[in-house]
Amino acid sequence: MVDISIDFGGTNIKIGLVHFGCVKAKTIIPAFADKGLIPRLSDVEKAIHQLLIDSGLMPCDCTGIGIALPGIIDPAAKTVLSINGKYADAVGFSFQEWANRIFSLDAVVENDARSALLGEIGYGAARGESNAVLIIFGTGIGTAAMINGQIVRGRHGQAGILGGHLVANVHGNRCTCGNVGCMEAQSSHWALPQLVKRHPQFLDSSLSNEIGIDYRSVIEALKAVDQVALEILEELLLYWSAGIINLIHAYDPEVVILSGGLMKSADVLLPQIVDRVHALAWTPWGKVRFVVAEDPDTSVLLGLSYLVQLSKT
Amino acid sequence: MVDISIDFGGTNIKIGLVHFGCVKAKTIIPAFADKGLIPRLSDVEKAIHQLLIDSGLMPCDCTGIGIALPGIIDPAAKTVLSINGKYADAVGFSFQEWANRIFSLDAVVENDARSALLGEIGYGAARGESNAVLIIFGTGIGTAAMINGQIVRGRHGQAGILGGHLVANVHGNRCTCGNVGCMEAQSSHWALPQLVKRHPQFLDSSLSNEIGIDYRSVIEALKAVDQVALEILEELLLYWSAGIINLIHAYDPEVVILSGGLMKSADVLLPQIVDRVHALAWTPWGKVRFVVAEDPDTSVLLGLSYLVQLSKT
Repeated sequence: MVDISIDFGGTNIKIGLVHFGCVKAKTIIPAFADKGLIPRLSDVEKAIHQLLIDSGLMPCDCTGIGIALPGIIDPAAKTVLSINGKYADAVGFSFQEWANRIFSLDAVVENDARSALLGEIGYGAARGESNAVLIIFGTGIGTAAMINGQIVRGRHGQAGILGGHLVANVHGNRCTCGNVGCMEAQSSHWALPQLVKRHPQFLDSSLSNEIGIDYRSVIEALKAVDQVALEILEELLLYWSAGIINLIHAYDPEVVILSGGLMKSADVLLPQIVDRVHALAWTPWGKVRFVVAEDPDTSVLLGLSYLVQLSKT
Repeated sequence: MVDISIDFGGTNIKIGLVHFGCVKAKTIIPAFADKGLIPRLSDVEKAIHQLLIDSGLMPCDCTGIGIALPGIIDPAAKTVLSINGKYADAVGFSFQEWANRIFSLDAVVENDARSALLGEIGYGAARGESNAVLIIFGTGIGTAAMINGQIVRGRHGQAGILGGHLVANVHGNRCTCGNVGCMEAQSSHWALPQLVKRHPQFLDSSLSNEIGIDYRSVIEALKAVDQVALEILEELLLYWSAGIINLIHAYDPEVVILSGGLMKSADVLLPQIVDRVHALAWTPWGKVRFVVAEDPDTSVLLGLSYLVQLSKT
């Protein structure tokens, strides 16, 4: 059986048909997340119908629909409890009612990073691990944790997923969550344009010619030995490493899973992150291993499929 | 039955006879922790014998000995796995063999903050709570967490207890643990003298006349409206609040328990900490409650007694 997985990201909505840990078909539509969730649903529905048609399938051939968002989720009620800076109208929306009305299928709803962790442990780069943290560099920075085979959820579903909102600099920037100096406010994709534009030599940098400054543009500028890009990347690496150390100190994992679009540049970034974390983390038992999602675009889709299967057993 | 509890702190060793959540007798001897554990054991033994004599008890009247240290503990082996900047020779020391040889009693060994959390939940200010974090301001800053009634331990016993070593400023000071910018390196009792002496107006402050600068001296100077003390306290409050927010974001508790010597000034500090945390923490379900240990000196002793009792059931 096939599952439908929908990853409502900050920049794109990724939709996949997943079969036993393998993404059989996938499509991506823009998120326009600042305009809300509900205005995007008709395009999501069209995209799913098209994927099914292209694959010669009907909704009734599917086990269920897995839905991930970058917010705090109530998995039992299948609703979003809180989300920051995007899809504001998703709070309280009944995904179950929607899935049932449009596709006659049950829905499973989960935080995106937690889905990605399950995807990588169930089917991906961290298969079979029991003590792991995941950090997914998307528009924001999502995290999730597993201790002794159990996903860390906490009393109100918040534990493990707010690693991007641990304070990494008390004198830092205001975050969209309301807090100050969150790792996400200091080093995420959404925070990057402001970080770059505030650099005193910004106008001397090739980055000043970019229309949209993103991780990719910084890494490209780096190849051209752009001093501003070098300094910005140094600062980002400082925050990413501190953020990973914080997850290690908080959850005591054996493996750190890295995912999200940024990991397309893992060849450049990973060795530097690993060196810094190994040098600074307090892990007297040994060294945490690092794995990168085999396909950083599909971690969430795989995890949703895992959850849909689990909901049917 | 009475238990013997020993809290090997960074500044003092606190020893108590505890009976059903009540410290019946207590004594304090200096730690000299930088000189190691083993050189202090004969004084600890003498102090315990004296406490027992004063209480009209013999070792055989006791259930067991609970021992807490500010390090990473293997509770099954009853040994210290790692400890930073104090009691260096405690690593690998067999507390069980010692307790058995000297007192013919079994030992229980636990991290000090985890013991304090159990003490406050079992017998103290947070009785009956199931989702809590504790932060104990001693010489260093210890933390512990409980999720859904289970103490957070992690794969190697490190989870929950390294909250003082979450990075709160990536551009901060080197910590004794080897990491940079830990909350403990920025705002603990041991870090304080350096923080104060680095202040540009230090020599104009009444603090420059103090022989040993500690939390108490900053709070005293504050009462005399000392500008340096005001600024230092503002900075400390920033870090303490961020550290508590990080624990809330990491473990999703309903209650934050504050303990340790600093809480003798809870009347001055607590309202400011609570206001900052409530303003900045992302807790859409409601507001975390704060409780202060009824007797901040005895949280650890009570928790050790709880663990000794548990070990005998």
